[in-house]
Amino acid sequence: MTSAPFDTQLAACAQRTEAFLIARLDGLTAAPRLTDAMRHGALGGGKRLRPFLVEASARLFGVEEREYLAAGAALEMVHCYSLVHDDLPDMDNDHLRRGKPTVWKAYDPALAILAGDALLTEAFRVLTDPQLIADSETRSELVAALAVGSGPDGMVAGQVLDIEGETKRLDEDDIFKMQALKTGALIRTGVEMGAILGRADVETRAALVLYGVHAGLAFQIADDILDVTASSHALGKTVGKDVEQNKSTIVSLRGVDGAREILEHAVEQGIRALNGFGQDAEILRILIRHFAEREH
Amino acid sequence: MTSAPFDTQLAACAQRTEAFLIARLDGLTAAPRLTDAMRHGALGGGKRLRPFLVEASARLFGVEEREYLAAGAALEMVHCYSLVHDDLPDMDNDHLRRGKPTVWKAYDPALAILAGDALLTEAFRVLTDPQLIADSETRSELVAALAVGSGPDGMVAGQVLDIEGETKRLDEDDIFKMQALKTGALIRTGVEMGAILGRADVETRAALVLYGVHAGLAFQIADDILDVTASSHALGKTVGKDVEQNKSTIVSLRGVDGAREILEHAVEQGIRALNGFGQDAEILRILIRHFAEREH
Repeated sequence: MTSAPFDTQLAACAQRTEAFLIARLDGLTAAPRLTDAMRHGALGGGKRLRPFLVEASARLFGVEEREYLAAGAALEMVHCYSLVHDDLPDMDNDHLRRGKPTVWKAYDPALAILAGDALLTEAFRVLTDPQLIADSETRSELVAALAVGSGPDGMVAGQVLDIEGETKRLDEDDIFKMQALKTGALIRTGVEMGAILGRADVETRAALVLYGVHAGLAFQIADDILDVTASSHALGKTVGKDVEQNKSTIVSLRGVDGAREILEHAVEQGIRALNGFGQDAEILRILIRHFAEREH
Repeated sequence: MTSAPFDTQLAACAQRTEAFLIARLDGLTAAPRLTDAMRHGALGGGKRLRPFLVEASARLFGVEEREYLAAGAALEMVHCYSLVHDDLPDMDNDHLRRGKPTVWKAYDPALAILAGDALLTEAFRVLTDPQLIADSETRSELVAALAVGSGPDGMVAGQVLDIEGETKRLDEDDIFKMQALKTGALIRTGVEMGAILGRADVETRAALVLYGVHAGLAFQIADDILDVTASSHALGKTVGKDVEQNKSTIVSLRGVDGAREILEHAVEQGIRALNGFGQDAEILRILIRHFAEREH
């Protein structure tokens, strides 16, 4: 890794990802209103943490920027699609996202459903572009990893368990399982995609996945804490939704202090998983601490 | 191809596809209610015409059943996801599909959104399973073709143009473009997936794609004619929706007789595209006539 400060590296990754997404979306001309709604859902917001996870993991293996940028952007498209669908009236019914109207508010619910579908589908197309990722085995494994992380064995399953948690009491195990799927799966997938791009051996890939699991846990618990402690203004989205929707979270079960303890433990375990990587993985250590300490 | 009658071959393909989907869905245990909703949307209905297109095309090249079955099932999952989302209250607001309640009616709209998302995502996972499709280049190309056919350069774009057609008058060119994307793209993709599995050369693949374009056109025009001539009972879904929703179709522009002429022409063109294939492609010739003459 370069020695540039963390914030500089993160901002540079976000800028590259934004440019990639802009160019990619500009190429979609079949239905202009659809592309506009996709732009609304995918551009101009977000810290692009998931692409940065792909990048930080891939750079451990000397992967070329062109390849990790494409993989990171595909992962971000999946993340953005999930937000577009999550915000729908039939789902969370959210009006505000990253400080601007959600896609269904800016357009209409039908177009938001289709824009989400299109972002998801296009992500898989990006991963199979031989101009972007040279090796076909790598392309195929990236698609498989993204499908596992985002589909019915991953993120979507977590969303269903999350909705079920609104009407039944979840115990701590249920909550950990739900969160590992809902938020954790895509974060883990990001680190895993870097390992796939790097053709890492089984043990190395497993160590990075273990780091990713703890990074996902840290991210989610920090999010739950912010939901009760932050302001709407700082967060750029509606806060207090968990309590309002009667959602079970680690915070509702353990309180803020109890949640902070679990958060600290997750950060320690994540950093421990990186023991074999030495100084090269410093950016991943900083990243998991960043997840834990973020204020928005 | 075997010499079994068309109907027998079609039914056998449907049975194999159903069995494949049942087994695949049984393997998804993370969120049981999600899997149930996916089953509701994917199992027990449909003639599985798209998997049969993959099979009929792939068998021109001696592709193994294991491979074309997986590719056909993946295509069918995408078709089913599109129906699940199409039926949503914010989209077509349909209550009946294949003679049973739509997924959102049987469950709820949120679960229908997520079940659709999950079917789409899982389709790409199926295509990248090395146990099902041996060659990585083939897996990657199948994903790319399916993403192009179903995403913002294909089916989803067509759905957006179709919705726009409810509030503005479409001319004949607009309607052909919309239909080529909305219905045609997946049908074309089915034939194309067979060619990809068979590692067909560029010219052979192009000839099959041309056939697929005309097969898609024939399928859609026949559908539009049925919407004004068939009964709800025969069709297993609500009819007369096009007129009710003020949708522009070839039938609304040219009348039933005019539409039948265009349909006949599409069948001829599709059959002409198969000239280089001789007797091997007979099943594809029967298939496009079946599209044109179907009564439900």
